[in-house]
Amino acid sequence: MSVPSASLRIGIAGLGTVGSAVLANLQHNAERFHAVLGRRIEVTGVSARSRTKKRNVSLDGIAWFDDPVELAASPTIDAFVELIGGAEGPARKAVETALAAGKHVVTANKALLAYHGLSLAKMAEAENVALLFEASVAGGIPVIKTVREALIGNEIRRVYGILNGTCNYILTKMQEEGASFDAALAEAQELGYAEADPTFDIGGMDAAHKLAVLTSLAFGTRVAIEEIHCEGIEHIRRADIEAADELGYRIKLLGVAQRIDGAIEARVSPVLVPKDSAVGEVSGVTNAIEIEGDYVGDLLLVGPGAGAKPTASSVISDIVEVARGDCLKPFIVPAAKLRPHKKATLGAHRGAYYVRLLVHDRPGAMASIAGRMAEHDVSLESIVQRRPRKSDAATPAKAAANNTMQLVLITHDTVEASIRRALKLIEQDGKIAGRAQMIRIETL
Amino acid sequence: MSVPSASLRIGIAGLGTVGSAVLANLQHNAERFHAVLGRRIEVTGVSARSRTKKRNVSLDGIAWFDDPVELAASPTIDAFVELIGGAEGPARKAVETALAAGKHVVTANKALLAYHGLSLAKMAEAENVALLFEASVAGGIPVIKTVREALIGNEIRRVYGILNGTCNYILTKMQEEGASFDAALAEAQELGYAEADPTFDIGGMDAAHKLAVLTSLAFGTRVAIEEIHCEGIEHIRRADIEAADELGYRIKLLGVAQRIDGAIEARVSPVLVPKDSAVGEVSGVTNAIEIEGDYVGDLLLVGPGAGAKPTASSVISDIVEVARGDCLKPFIVPAAKLRPHKKATLGAHRGAYYVRLLVHDRPGAMASIAGRMAEHDVSLESIVQRRPRKSDAATPAKAAANNTMQLVLITHDTVEASIRRALKLIEQDGKIAGRAQMIRIETL
Repeated sequence: MSVPSASLRIGIAGLGTVGSAVLANLQHNAERFHAVLGRRIEVTGVSARSRTKKRNVSLDGIAWFDDPVELAASPTIDAFVELIGGAEGPARKAVETALAAGKHVVTANKALLAYHGLSLAKMAEAENVALLFEASVAGGIPVIKTVREALIGNEIRRVYGILNGTCNYILTKMQEEGASFDAALAEAQELGYAEADPTFDIGGMDAAHKLAVLTSLAFGTRVAIEEIHCEGIEHIRRADIEAADELGYRIKLLGVAQRIDGAIEARVSPVLVPKDSAVGEVSGVTNAIEIEGDYVGDLLLVGPGAGAKPTASSVISDIVEVARGDCLKPFIVPAAKLRPHKKATLGAHRGAYYVRLLVHDRPGAMASIAGRMAEHDVSLESIVQRRPRKSDAATPAKAAANNTMQLVLITHDTVEASIRRALKLIEQDGKIAGRAQMIRIETL
Repeated sequence: MSVPSASLRIGIAGLGTVGSAVLANLQHNAERFHAVLGRRIEVTGVSARSRTKKRNVSLDGIAWFDDPVELAASPTIDAFVELIGGAEGPARKAVETALAAGKHVVTANKALLAYHGLSLAKMAEAENVALLFEASVAGGIPVIKTVREALIGNEIRRVYGILNGTCNYILTKMQEEGASFDAALAEAQELGYAEADPTFDIGGMDAAHKLAVLTSLAFGTRVAIEEIHCEGIEHIRRADIEAADELGYRIKLLGVAQRIDGAIEARVSPVLVPKDSAVGEVSGVTNAIEIEGDYVGDLLLVGPGAGAKPTASSVISDIVEVARGDCLKPFIVPAAKLRPHKKATLGAHRGAYYVRLLVHDRPGAMASIAGRMAEHDVSLESIVQRRPRKSDAATPAKAAANNTMQLVLITHDTVEASIRRALKLIEQDGKIAGRAQMIRIETL
């Protein structure tokens, strides 16, 4: 097994906290990697927005490029490490340039892969170079390597997990400290866990990008971000957290991808999971992913889903893999053989549901609601009715809160289209204040 | 990145449940692996004890070898898969023969690696072939790949985990159903989780073999099974499980390897862990490993630690890696550069301890025990004294049980040599019945 003895020359674009950590790690491990690989890994070029910004890492002897695309095309590098971010703009341009120039690419860019993964994989395969992206999903957790390599003998049935630390932090705060959504979000922003514009995280899009990548790897389908159903946590209230808790559940933003009758159901949404389940117990910014394979059974990975050093750990793993030599294709099977992502209709989803309604305290309301459920063959496993607390009020319902009772229903397994129709009619019947809250209960 | 286009020809020695599952998987995935790798993986030879035994897998077109060593030497194979087991005998002979003949080796044999890992690694490196052993530690959990590849940029501070499913099953039964050790063991044997002679599992040696392999990979030291401190669970009583439970702990057989002042403390023993810790919550035959690295932080892997299909999943991963081409060296750094395993003295271990004593119910006993602890600078965090239940009696103490009080002590952090000396004197003082029970409390 011969390894090329020449150095692997690396160009790094993006020298924020992750890029600086990657550079520092490569410098620190230079001799060790040389001993392990029989060749050196040398950073020969870097590119970032500010050349003068103070960094805790030396750039001595490394060529500076103002333009990442120029670095990507430079004959002075063999592999391009993209840590710029964003699905378009310089990140995309630079990665495409590097691949077209026959350079290996390592990236942490989930958006780029979610939108352009298929075309980039084709480019990489055409040039016979590596395209690796361990850091793009779940930070320091080696979930990509696990699905690509460790479980390659498995048919994956389902993969699911907590893929966004910001949302899990907010939900944990609401759970453990009784914080409101707004207060928990503000705290996450203060601690740097959430962006000034947090829409991308709390709306579920960040997790959806990651799930799109995982889905493709797990099921051998083309990356298809547009086929991922995406709901965020912005409508979760303390009342939901509390009601779920009383019933033995936690609310988590979960990405779930599973095979359903030859199609794929892939969705990001808040769900109820049992308190004592593996993902139910994961708190704060930690990520967790469970993979179910026909040979391995259930495999759970838990670790830091973000942060400079954990992310750098994954980038380094990819760089060393490039330096080793032969890599598997970006999405395991050749891009031309990836199957179309055949989306399962979410309306056909079977499962149990949590429903919370603020019911006008008038005679016949309960009978009307129960009737609508029965009409749609939705049977109920549990019903909890009580006078709502102040914390229960979602904005549209606030005014009405004083004359309402909170009704929490857990259904038996039913079809999503049925429960949705029943709830729509219940809303139209005028027996409830505001909208019905419906959350899937995940079978783990 | 060119991949050899010729088939990879595999010889499998050992066709028990694991070997049959590996063969079935390779047959099932033949076309998929061809597409992924650009070359075929073909099983060209097999060897097992009985040629006529009924197996759920076809051996058509595969050459049969009565002698695994002959298979290992055969020019008809490129890679040898050893699933025979045992540190010596045919397994060792066959693996050495295969390596000497320049063939790649994939093995699930932890004992072989624990005793001969260093010399086998040297042989593999001399011949420039792969020696891979994912299935040797924690069954289907890809812990070896994770340490070798995913965390290659990390300095590992500590690795610990539940590495023996049999012991965890027994401890879980004692915990959840109040079973005695003997009853739980008998049940594990009935279910096929424990061998007819269970000494190897319950005495901790199985876990010690795995920890020896993990320690070498994590710390870059020579495999040194003789330096692994090993205690089993045979002395754990229901009284310990119950007392630990009351104090918020679970008792687990843990393998722990950590750096202590430039040396390595590596030990397998029952320990107390917090109930709500990740490993505290792992029940039954499941395995769990936590790895602490300077970049990644804490990474937890949980999954099936044994069983035919999970083990086959890991073997297949190794075979595909061999088929890919360049592999890292068996213990990451070249065998000649592995450092000696410098053993930390366990007497210098600092931590808290759980102590259970059956104290003769006579005036002055408590004062004497407390005095001995104080003499050795052992301070106590908690003391629980009560009349023992029937379940508390360890065999030597049974006779005395009626006149004794059970005393459970939790110490503050102290040095192991001190608590050991104190307990030895307490035993000699004659104030307690039988021996003192001492269990480390693990800081997680």
